[in-house]
Amino acid sequence: MTMNGQWRLRTRPDGMVRESDFEYVEEEIGGPGEGQLLVRNLYLAFEPAMRGWLNDVKSYVPPVGIGEVMRASTVGQVVESRHPGFAAGDIVSGMLGWQQYAIADGEPGMMGRLTKVPAGIPPYLVLSALGGTGLTAYFGMLDVGELKEGDTVLVSGAAGATGSVAAQIARIKGAAKVVGIAGGAAKCKWLVDEAGCDAAIDYKSEDVGQQLRQEFPKGVDLFFDNVGGEILDAALLNMAQKGRVVICGGISQYNEKELPAGPRNYMQIVIRRLTVKGFILIDYFHKAQQAMTDLGAWVGEGKLNHAEDIQEGIENTPKTFLRLFSGANLGKQLLKIADPE
Amino acid sequence: MTMNGQWRLRTRPDGMVRESDFEYVEEEIGGPGEGQLLVRNLYLAFEPAMRGWLNDVKSYVPPVGIGEVMRASTVGQVVESRHPGFAAGDIVSGMLGWQQYAIADGEPGMMGRLTKVPAGIPPYLVLSALGGTGLTAYFGMLDVGELKEGDTVLVSGAAGATGSVAAQIARIKGAAKVVGIAGGAAKCKWLVDEAGCDAAIDYKSEDVGQQLRQEFPKGVDLFFDNVGGEILDAALLNMAQKGRVVICGGISQYNEKELPAGPRNYMQIVIRRLTVKGFILIDYFHKAQQAMTDLGAWVGEGKLNHAEDIQEGIENTPKTFLRLFSGANLGKQLLKIADPE
Repeated sequence: MTMNGQWRLRTRPDGMVRESDFEYVEEEIGGPGEGQLLVRNLYLAFEPAMRGWLNDVKSYVPPVGIGEVMRASTVGQVVESRHPGFAAGDIVSGMLGWQQYAIADGEPGMMGRLTKVPAGIPPYLVLSALGGTGLTAYFGMLDVGELKEGDTVLVSGAAGATGSVAAQIARIKGAAKVVGIAGGAAKCKWLVDEAGCDAAIDYKSEDVGQQLRQEFPKGVDLFFDNVGGEILDAALLNMAQKGRVVICGGISQYNEKELPAGPRNYMQIVIRRLTVKGFILIDYFHKAQQAMTDLGAWVGEGKLNHAEDIQEGIENTPKTFLRLFSGANLGKQLLKIADPE
Repeated sequence: MTMNGQWRLRTRPDGMVRESDFEYVEEEIGGPGEGQLLVRNLYLAFEPAMRGWLNDVKSYVPPVGIGEVMRASTVGQVVESRHPGFAAGDIVSGMLGWQQYAIADGEPGMMGRLTKVPAGIPPYLVLSALGGTGLTAYFGMLDVGELKEGDTVLVSGAAGATGSVAAQIARIKGAAKVVGIAGGAAKCKWLVDEAGCDAAIDYKSEDVGQQLRQEFPKGVDLFFDNVGGEILDAALLNMAQKGRVVICGGISQYNEKELPAGPRNYMQIVIRRLTVKGFILIDYFHKAQQAMTDLGAWVGEGKLNHAEDIQEGIENTPKTFLRLFSGANLGKQLLKIADPE
């Protein structure tokens, strides 16, 4: 028998999520049944959207229940397999949650499916540029946003996991100009030096609206928004006629106690004849193969820089989640909880 | 020489537009120059979007200047023509403003163009179902909204000029269900009895959200919004997955002193994977011929009921404009200021 440390949801957050909304529990975990496998998690991944899963409302996935292990994407190693498709030692990725070990059934499925991580890449890459994060940026930019060569492109949350990949895809695919919005000088420097941006706007120290007017005198053709709130409002006033806005997320909104006011400038959608689209990655899983091939090639060729903020230790799980909302992370927020054998 | 009564913009409204923001002035009007014509206005048309033209902000048309005649669509009769394409007695439509007479140059052009009104239809119809109003509903529903047979359709401001045509186009084109939102029992009865709606929701006496949940258990495929504000918010919570929202206008917002909060529920755009589009009629003028043919046929066949609220007397011009914002009108708000010769 193996002891399994788990972080379970203790209370639903009211406003900003707190570490105390989760509790650490250890319990024994048995061996895998027929067709199952026992996996040891190596890395946990953190995404802003996980905050939404804590609210008791109908959404695109059911909320995490009180007392349940917090849902999260992970990369792990197979300890014991009774499934013909997997062997002990395999590196796998799935949604195995905030825990050290999990019993997985190995069957494909929207949330529960396990995929093998190819040899030769750092396992955590399938949680960032080569995983859901990269796919979100890829489909958001290319399928939803219909990026065209010569577009002027704005990305918010651009030093975050998805935004940084989105900005670089715009660059790779021939955008005329790519500008990222991020918080702080270090992130802004990274955007220009490492992530292919022509310019970066520091929302913490600059007037975003004024900078947008300066950077985009003819307006933004495609805005990829991860943030919402005031940044979305400023962008709406600087869109080009018939511009497109891809709403990927709205991290500025997720921890508000009451639903905050929406974009005040939404009538610009009419005045500027905009198209605003939302999307959820799960709708694009059937097209993932081509995207993974492209993303892998770009990483291999050095065209797509990936960044990860890797914290350590299962005891730091909720604390690491909170880094997303203070904007502490540059790139994908990960937590390493074990080394592979 | 002819005396010309004009309503000019006196002060920019701050919040709700008032009659006193306009002043009545009479001055002599000369005869037409070479290539010009003198037109006597018969009907003035009123649209919510005109409120936006009073604000000193950059938009899709320049604001009306202080001291200028208020811009408006009109139908008039040619008094004297020095343009080869028009003769005295012709009924014409154009943007000749809040005045009894105007000198027009007869050349085609986005805002200034004059079109002849075909004989055999009431002249004011080119200001309502067979004019910009009908075209707005037509392109909004079919081109922007991409209405498909079997769609469930919701229209706000449905007893207004554009909304009432939009709802009927949805019915004509095979929507599975059409529901209109309007204020008051009389308008709601008219929507069901005369305008092809399966049901109507009275926002003044009913809980819009609750009614929407009841009328659309599987969600709204296409929402045509003229209103914005709380009605848009309620609709966002009741959209079907991958639903489309056409933002035609936002009458609830136009008279606010400060830009009101935007749609609180805008993250539903992500959760429900919505597409939200704005549009302005002038982008579709090049396709107007087919639309006019269809609208004319539907009116002729009795499939498209049109409604007009026709007030009388040039002295009542600003008062008539204000009827839009109190929701007094059912159908197109018009003012008759003269009879044709």
